[in-house]
Amino acid sequence: MHHLGARISRIAPGRVHIVLPSRPEVTQHNGFIHAGATGAIADTAGGFAAVTLFPDNAEVLTVEYKINLLAPALGDHIEAVGTVLKPGRTLTVCGLEVFAVQDGRRKLVANGQQTLIRVTVPGQ
Amino acid sequence: MHHLGARISRIAPGRVHIVLPSRPEVTQHNGFIHAGATGAIADTAGGFAAVTLFPDNAEVLTVEYKINLLAPALGDHIEAVGTVLKPGRTLTVCGLEVFAVQDGRRKLVANGQQTLIRVTVPGQ
Amino acid sequence: MHHLGARISRIAPGRVHIVLPSRPEVTQHNGFIHAGATGAIADTAGGFAAVTLFPDNAEVLTVEYKINLLAPALGDHIEAVGTVLKPGRTLTVCGLEVFAVQDGRRKLVANGQQTLIRVTVPGQ
Amino acid sequence: MHHLGARISRIAPGRVHIVLPSRPEVTQHNGFIHAGATGAIADTAGGFAAVTLFPDNAEVLTVEYKINLLAPALGDHIEAVGTVLKPGRTLTVCGLEVFAVQDGRRKLVANGQQTLIRVTVPGQ
Repeated sequence: MHHLGARISRIAPGRVHIVLPSRPEVTQHNGFIHAGATGAIADTAGGFAAVTLFPDNAEVLTVEYKINLLAPALGDHIEAVGTVLKPGRTLTVCGLEVFAVQDGRRKLVANGQQTLIRVTVPGQ
Repeated sequence: MHHLGARISRIAPGRVHIVLPSRPEVTQHNGFIHAGATGAIADTAGGFAAVTLFPDNAEVLTVEYKINLLAPALGDHIEAVGTVLKPGRTLTVCGLEVFAVQDGRRKLVANGQQTLIRVTVPGQ
Repeated sequence: MHHLGARISRIAPGRVHIVLPSRPEVTQHNGFIHAGATGAIADTAGGFAAVTLFPDNAEVLTVEYKINLLAPALGDHIEAVGTVLKPGRTLTVCGLEVFAVQDGRRKLVANGQQTLIRVTVPGQ
Repeated sequence: MHHLGARISRIAPGRVHIVLPSRPEVTQHNGFIHAGATGAIADTAGGFAAVTLFPDNAEVLTVEYKINLLAPALGDHIEAVGTVLKPGRTLTVCGLEVFAVQDGRRKLVANGQQTLIRVTVPGQ
């Protein structure tokens, strides 16, 4: 994510926003941000959202995610929002949204859902 | 994809293989290839698999995809295989598989499904 | 749906609620409403929600749906809510929620997402 | 399932087939078997497939499933096949296929994927 230029823009308990600038590395020939990159930052936003609710020695792994691409991701940047729908000791389910932002206008371009499993980091 | 070092390793009608070498840009601190990168190359393999069945002026857009991460993607490279399950004039459905390859041994690390919509490229 | 005792409880443009009473036919030995029945009424609610936005001679077919079961569906009845996230000439995407209702208290027990394709009914 | 007339037609380790006869209760006005019923028997076949690999005191709950409806489910009966792709102590992932069978000819009408969680039945 860091490699793609993504950064966390907002953190709250159970919700994390990630911003990905529209750069040549993540755009297709037509200027749209690639579906794979859109899915990747959505997945990351959901994982971070879950982690906000857990103790320091807990991490999460993605079990699965599903994403619908609703409109071309065209803009200055895209913003992924991960929101915990149901936290759990073992499994956590997140809603995923991705917005394209152009000149301050936000448009929903992808919507998804994700299942995460909590793992304890050894030695912490 | 090109940016991540991915390349097509095999093309047949309705099936495309893409190889992604394990590089620092796509791996996490623990050496595993990132779930987002895994999903992204699976999505790409499915899109290319569909295109092999269509005339030259047809492209596809991803409507949605869903992927289960079955095991850590640890290896020299990962290989995504997209296979058309049901081609269509409007919608095409693909199966997605991702294998991690270490010292020539292949292990299934992700499995998914994808819906694509066919679009005609103007002016071709 | 009718066969299972389901009925539409609320219709608005782009949103439909369906209620399914907890009957022996749809419950498991432990009293929970079956995951399959939960998915089925969620799918139906989404399809009806899309149809509210279309002209009379348009119908929809389900392309795909995905649903997470968040908690046991235990209650007097369950209520599925389908909400159009993105309507389209060809494809429409809906969000799906299912609540279990016990003594007037509502609990989210399933959350999903659905892709529909619009079809024109011949002869209308 | 029993209520809908479904029955298990084949059991092997990690694979279960379920047959659902085409009856008025599960068909739409056009004679097609309902998407919700198709999803429900696919979900059931996957759950049973997982259970074949576990000890007697283990059950499974559906975490989530996703299904693509590929073609109208028109036939004498439909047959759902659940196949374990990856068994696990906590999570198990299954592939789901549904075939419509008419006069002995089988056609793939739905394809899906499912995540299950293993639970231990108390007192066994």
